[in-house]
Amino acid sequence: MSSKGRFIVVEGLEGAGKSTAVACIKAWLEQQQLQVVCTREPGGTPLAEHIRQLVKQVHEETLAPEAELLLMYAARVQLLQQVIEPALAEGKWVLADRHDLSSRAYQGGGRQLDEGLINSIRHAVLGDCRPDLTLYLDIDPALGLERAKARGELDRIELEQLAFFQRTRQAYLTIAASEPGIVVIDAAQDLSKVQQDLIQALTDFWTAQHASLA
Amino acid sequence: MSSKGRFIVVEGLEGAGKSTAVACIKAWLEQQQLQVVCTREPGGTPLAEHIRQLVKQVHEETLAPEAELLLMYAARVQLLQQVIEPALAEGKWVLADRHDLSSRAYQGGGRQLDEGLINSIRHAVLGDCRPDLTLYLDIDPALGLERAKARGELDRIELEQLAFFQRTRQAYLTIAASEPGIVVIDAAQDLSKVQQDLIQALTDFWTAQHASLA
Repeated sequence: MSSKGRFIVVEGLEGAGKSTAVACIKAWLEQQQLQVVCTREPGGTPLAEHIRQLVKQVHEETLAPEAELLLMYAARVQLLQQVIEPALAEGKWVLADRHDLSSRAYQGGGRQLDEGLINSIRHAVLGDCRPDLTLYLDIDPALGLERAKARGELDRIELEQLAFFQRTRQAYLTIAASEPGIVVIDAAQDLSKVQQDLIQALTDFWTAQHASLA
Repeated sequence: MSSKGRFIVVEGLEGAGKSTAVACIKAWLEQQQLQVVCTREPGGTPLAEHIRQLVKQVHEETLAPEAELLLMYAARVQLLQQVIEPALAEGKWVLADRHDLSSRAYQGGGRQLDEGLINSIRHAVLGDCRPDLTLYLDIDPALGLERAKARGELDRIELEQLAFFQRTRQAYLTIAASEPGIVVIDAAQDLSKVQQDLIQALTDFWTAQHASLA
């Protein structure tokens, strides 16, 4: 394989089990003797974590959907330039808890912001940096939100109506069906089965990477 | 005149005398028995003031030019939706210390970000809200920065190199020469002459507004 690192993203709705999936994937990658850098979005640099606070907090004023989108990409470009791109260049693997697909699903699907606007921002901000593999943990939002509630206090986005998350899930599924490199994992299954599916997707990816460079 | 308010923007480099100009214009408008709402950018709502802090502070990490642009527009859309549009709808006049033209000049001219990106964001964020009159206080950046320094500590943007401000000024002048509704005021003149020019521009605007609706 080339000495450049690989960029793996875990995506999904609230309560889909992203944190557990990240831990499982990290352990598997480290077993392959890879250096792994974990990130989360929005956030992951001091400045981007400030932006995360602004986005997650409940404010007295309504955060405009357009402002939410712009804040998400402001945090993303910071993380990309400060952490993700340097790590990949050093040959490390980057394992991200959310990335660009979240904005396309939440701000595009959930908030129904114009796809043209989102695309022009993403192309300008991301350049040619794209995940090598995205693992989308699919869950019915009613079940996901129940799990998220059991975890504690809900943040500003988690307080949205069910219809918002249904639109977000639909956007995830539509994009996953039409673009390469996105594997849909059924996150409603037992944890052991979810982890088995994750490892299978990683193994397939690993094999394909080796085959393409053999 | 129509019962909708008017939107007047004061623009210019650091040390051009924007604050003094705003005070002078406000007094003149109030003499005409108008209700005036003053704003500043970035900022002007609690959330937008948080974003202002992020943009103005010197950070340990470099703020990516793209992130700076996105933060500016995130703050702008908040101010627009929370303050400017409601005030105009109520028939108030809005007097703004900086608005959209600042981003075109600083992030477009100064930072040399892609004009296509800036335009797609501005059109999505601003809708059809445009200033009725922009007063651009033109000053040689060497003189302006000297004045700004005399005022105290410089913020992150004020610490840029002279060439950055020269590009910014050039962008202001180019846009002012090619678009309607922007009056260039020579801010290197004596204060009394600057104020005289501001009042003249306001009087011309006032007369034109009445004439067009007579």
